[in-house]
Amino acid sequence: MRFVSFEHQGRASYGAWKDDSSWWQVPAAFQDRHPDLKSVIAAGQLDEMGQAARESGQLRQAADCRLLPVIPNPGKVFCVGLNYKTHVAETRRADSDYPAIFTRFADSLGAHGAPLPRPASTTRFDFEGELAVIIGRGGRRIAQSDAFDHIAGYACFNDATARDWQRHTHQWTPGKNFPATGPLGPFMATPADIPDVNALTLQTRLNGEVMQQASLADLIFTLPVILEYLSGFTTLSPGDVIATGTPGGVGDRREPPVYMKPGDVIEVEITGLGTLRNVVVDED
Amino acid sequence: MRFVSFEHQGRASYGAWKDDSSWWQVPAAFQDRHPDLKSVIAAGQLDEMGQAARESGQLRQAADCRLLPVIPNPGKVFCVGLNYKTHVAETRRADSDYPAIFTRFADSLGAHGAPLPRPASTTRFDFEGELAVIIGRGGRRIAQSDAFDHIAGYACFNDATARDWQRHTHQWTPGKNFPATGPLGPFMATPADIPDVNALTLQTRLNGEVMQQASLADLIFTLPVILEYLSGFTTLSPGDVIATGTPGGVGDRREPPVYMKPGDVIEVEITGLGTLRNVVVDED
Repeated sequence: MRFVSFEHQGRASYGAWKDDSSWWQVPAAFQDRHPDLKSVIAAGQLDEMGQAARESGQLRQAADCRLLPVIPNPGKVFCVGLNYKTHVAETRRADSDYPAIFTRFADSLGAHGAPLPRPASTTRFDFEGELAVIIGRGGRRIAQSDAFDHIAGYACFNDATARDWQRHTHQWTPGKNFPATGPLGPFMATPADIPDVNALTLQTRLNGEVMQQASLADLIFTLPVILEYLSGFTTLSPGDVIATGTPGGVGDRREPPVYMKPGDVIEVEITGLGTLRNVVVDED
Repeated sequence: MRFVSFEHQGRASYGAWKDDSSWWQVPAAFQDRHPDLKSVIAAGQLDEMGQAARESGQLRQAADCRLLPVIPNPGKVFCVGLNYKTHVAETRRADSDYPAIFTRFADSLGAHGAPLPRPASTTRFDFEGELAVIIGRGGRRIAQSDAFDHIAGYACFNDATARDWQRHTHQWTPGKNFPATGPLGPFMATPADIPDVNALTLQTRLNGEVMQQASLADLIFTLPVILEYLSGFTTLSPGDVIATGTPGGVGDRREPPVYMKPGDVIEVEITGLGTLRNVVVDED
């Protein structure tokens, strides 16, 4: 099943995805018990919620709603850098024995269909199409063999980056945390719908032109390795988001470089996870 | 005035610091309105809270309480790397035009007096004495000239680090986010008590031996520069914590290196901010 977070008449809610133009809102009684999708995940009630939404919820039209990041309030957002050989090569970096981990604050996430704000202070605003993993059951020291038991779902992610701010120093935090620069969505799909991550392909398009194209089988650090590594130093919790890295083809490494500007349409499409689409606007 | 967060009879509370062995708990009616110290800061009620705690609160004995990180639940925790020339020199890095920013998750913070857990998976557990700033009024694009209007207070911080995990890659997140490895406290003092940050001195002691000694006047990036920079890419909010960097003398850069081991007593003392003291234990 597919799940979505959205705002309707000014109130945050969630439910089950029907299609690009409509979704079922969870019944109010259900939301009273679980205020947000993260709470549903923590309670292990995703399937029950989806069923309740379809059976007794309201069908909402996209035109009447504002989508939210699929998980609007994750406790932790991890990003894996340099996780495709094609991207490692274009950055001219050496291979690493460990995944490079940086973080985003929750308020740096954005929604499908929302304007993607280009920070006023950057001249190098770049896209990064990625697969995001949403944690279901939390834990510390998760073994690789148990990793998929801890995954609630998957979604498209665009780790949009102010390259100049990313490279002010060797630590990437600033360029990765401008408000609403990390769209996550449009929906999340569960492992039941995505039985084989290796079979997925990812495509990033800028104004319709394919900029990144990769198979998820090409991840250097697989999902089990990433979950084992992250849970080796911190506790993973329901609703935590892990962006698994971007393949080669980012704008900044092209000759000449390609940066996003107001009016541009940027899309990230992954098999079975829909198309995450945003139009770039100037911040503020 | 000085403020503290603590747990008494299993319930999280806060109040006004009296001395190392006792503090006034805020009256219950006040806590009903403001569940934690962060909420008091957000409401701009620190002084009122302190007065209410002294006048009608309960004097609690340290022996009956468990201190919490001064802000147990910050929305964002920023750390500035390489912010003293003495530390830049010992790491053999070049000067930078910008502060190096990395982040900690809130659950990586610890409390004064609590056991400091040495991660089972590190052999290089190091100390980093630092001044922490706690944000009062939030904002984006804070001008340097307004920076001190956005500061609610100051506290001692120990940015304890698993050096091996910090250097798995160029991104430092993993080594800085093991649970409870960042003690923050024992209390926070307001700018009224700390009128001149440049007059502060910081000392880190390991089993009584001075390992780090610096003047806060030696910060490469001053507090106004740091606040301007951080608020340049993200929104600062009440209760956010900024660790301002550590001076030279860390254990990892000594010859031979010095690492913390179970039973070690690690202290960070800053003028007017008391002594943050922890005993190292094995994790779990």
